[in-house]
Amino acid sequence: MDIQAYMTQVGTQARQASRALLRATTEQKNRALLAMANALEANKATLQAENAKDLVKGEANGLDAAMLDRLAITDVTIASMAEGLRQIAALQDPVGEISDMSFRPSGIQVGKMRVPLGVVGIIYESRPNVTIDAAALCLKSGNAAILRGGSEALHSNQALAGCIRQGLSDAGLAADTVQVIETTDREVVGHLIAMPEFVDVIIPRGGKGLIERISQGARVPVIKHLDGICHVYIDDDADFEKAVKVALNAKTHRYGVCNAMETLLVAESQAEKVLPELAKLYAEKQVELRGCEKTCAIIDAKAASEEDWASEYLAPVLSIKVVADVDAAMDHIASFSSGHTESIITENFTTARRFLAEVDSSSVMVNASTRFADGFEYGLGAEIGISTDKFHARGPVGLEGLTSQKYIVLGDGTIRQ
Amino acid sequence: MDIQAYMTQVGTQARQASRALLRATTEQKNRALLAMANALEANKATLQAENAKDLVKGEANGLDAAMLDRLAITDVTIASMAEGLRQIAALQDPVGEISDMSFRPSGIQVGKMRVPLGVVGIIYESRPNVTIDAAALCLKSGNAAILRGGSEALHSNQALAGCIRQGLSDAGLAADTVQVIETTDREVVGHLIAMPEFVDVIIPRGGKGLIERISQGARVPVIKHLDGICHVYIDDDADFEKAVKVALNAKTHRYGVCNAMETLLVAESQAEKVLPELAKLYAEKQVELRGCEKTCAIIDAKAASEEDWASEYLAPVLSIKVVADVDAAMDHIASFSSGHTESIITENFTTARRFLAEVDSSSVMVNASTRFADGFEYGLGAEIGISTDKFHARGPVGLEGLTSQKYIVLGDGTIRQ
Repeated sequence: MDIQAYMTQVGTQARQASRALLRATTEQKNRALLAMANALEANKATLQAENAKDLVKGEANGLDAAMLDRLAITDVTIASMAEGLRQIAALQDPVGEISDMSFRPSGIQVGKMRVPLGVVGIIYESRPNVTIDAAALCLKSGNAAILRGGSEALHSNQALAGCIRQGLSDAGLAADTVQVIETTDREVVGHLIAMPEFVDVIIPRGGKGLIERISQGARVPVIKHLDGICHVYIDDDADFEKAVKVALNAKTHRYGVCNAMETLLVAESQAEKVLPELAKLYAEKQVELRGCEKTCAIIDAKAASEEDWASEYLAPVLSIKVVADVDAAMDHIASFSSGHTESIITENFTTARRFLAEVDSSSVMVNASTRFADGFEYGLGAEIGISTDKFHARGPVGLEGLTSQKYIVLGDGTIRQ
Repeated sequence: MDIQAYMTQVGTQARQASRALLRATTEQKNRALLAMANALEANKATLQAENAKDLVKGEANGLDAAMLDRLAITDVTIASMAEGLRQIAALQDPVGEISDMSFRPSGIQVGKMRVPLGVVGIIYESRPNVTIDAAALCLKSGNAAILRGGSEALHSNQALAGCIRQGLSDAGLAADTVQVIETTDREVVGHLIAMPEFVDVIIPRGGKGLIERISQGARVPVIKHLDGICHVYIDDDADFEKAVKVALNAKTHRYGVCNAMETLLVAESQAEKVLPELAKLYAEKQVELRGCEKTCAIIDAKAASEEDWASEYLAPVLSIKVVADVDAAMDHIASFSSGHTESIITENFTTARRFLAEVDSSSVMVNASTRFADGFEYGLGAEIGISTDKFHARGPVGLEGLTSQKYIVLGDGTIRQ
């Protein structure tokens, strides 16, 4: 297979489909999404038979239980993919939204219209449900999609692609609106990320290694999600109960997630009161504590190394540092945060206001658990990822993050003098 | 000079300054801008003496009259730079703007806060006034700036940098908030565009060659402005007078600008009526016409080649094509437009609505001259460039384009269940 020729064809088709999509109505897009949901349910047997091929091959190739689990298309997976499609159909269409129209002294009326980005390339690993999820978000936001899933899920993804095509065709939309790459050749990725004439943005979903590799090589913008080294800072003026509740929830609600707290910062004036209580609660959950010198003088914790402050544990491990005040806390955050999510616990209005303005992360919180940094919790209705970049989309990316705004100008034969 | 070490120092200082800037008040930023304006006026003699060194050297190096003209800091240049600073001081501060705050079922209140991008690198050619303009826009939008001007303006830019530093210092802001590169070593650019740890976005201002080179090599986002191949389409349902007025203005108001019309598209049903009138008016302005076969059958014009449709003339030259209808016009635009600005002349509501939705350019207009695609005409109050990209900022980029939005979350000890 000539991968270059194949990708040029895929790109050309995607660009054409993205133009056609500008003429699609909201009703048509929703109809396609609902038809895809029905197709998933109607083709359950085929989907699971194709999925079985991937599972057998995966087992033979020595995939571990967790990976096989992610790869499996169970009845529950199908129901949840179908439910996701129906939810996205129910969301408001962001495309065409007009805002800020105003008259200018020249006589023109100028404002902005929300428009699709064009063609979105998505590169992801084993979970086949991403195929459906990504297709649905791109379609609803008016973007053509090129999906490149993991080689271990090839049969599953091709079967899902069939359901997607059926949905598109039921609604009278071009089959190329969503293209699922048909080869596992790794050369595909290199082409996909370097075709600015065909692809407007790349979204990698997967481990840090994948994302860094793609960012390095990309010739188009990448919406990337790197580490989540999130902090909670318990301020001098923190309410004791809120502090304990939030610090416990942010660490222990779930461990393997990017919005879990990895480092707890505690104002010196609070440390002797709040740390013993927290240490007790963390012990009940078997959370390993690694503290600075001052922390270790108050509670039982291992000595933290410099490396700890820069670690995303994604595990029941927490580093704790006692700091002088909010300035010291913000300095620590500026040095070690990955720019994902930070929260302050304080009753002080001015301190809260400073923290919100001065902390440079995609989500900044007051008296709330970092675990809320999530598209669904924020009411976006869907999430294609969480951006730790500052450019374009920042934080949880929903439909709006897959769009841009162009200017529109209305006149009456108006000319520039 | 060790350029790598120098750029690392510049970058480190810029990053620090950008953090400090998050604490600056609007009043402080405005005070600095006004103090810069005063400093320019007070240091007129020095500025012009330093500028004279560049002019002498430029002449010796064989710069042509137009380039020397752009390089010169006249009394008018100084007055207009000072006026620009005062205008930017008068603009509303975009930083800290909070929007869309709403309560979620979980009890959190979530919304967005507008924040600076961080550190902006600007690479530009001969005009020294860009130094002041770029410094002012970055400062007002809360960004630290690294400015790399043309080597032919080195003395002028360093003298201007002195006025900028004086303004910053008068307002109690760090001198490193705006750094003007002190060497003409070309290696600087290579470092500046590849330091994601220090620079958040690069804005090249200059010719297409410069912008393409920078986009190719950049490891950070680039707000880029490539060609302006703008179209006006005179629709079947166009008003004759509006069509003539706009088609004349869009081509002849100014020739060397990116928002000038380069190709006129005319619906077949209108061609015999509108083209002769336009040909007469263009002839009065000595505009050279290059037409498709049908055009040449109606008016006196050279035969246009394929290359003409893809040309940004920036000169009194216009290509003209007769098309079947709005679909053919939009097909031509999709094939040849650079995505800058297109306008339709029509009285038909539905055709206008389709053109606005389906044309994928940064500005799309109805019954208005393409010459309006401009930050000042749109009421942005200032413009750092016009983006032909779809990602992040699109069209004229003012203060808002130099910012991003982060999420803010307020709670009351709220935790995720």
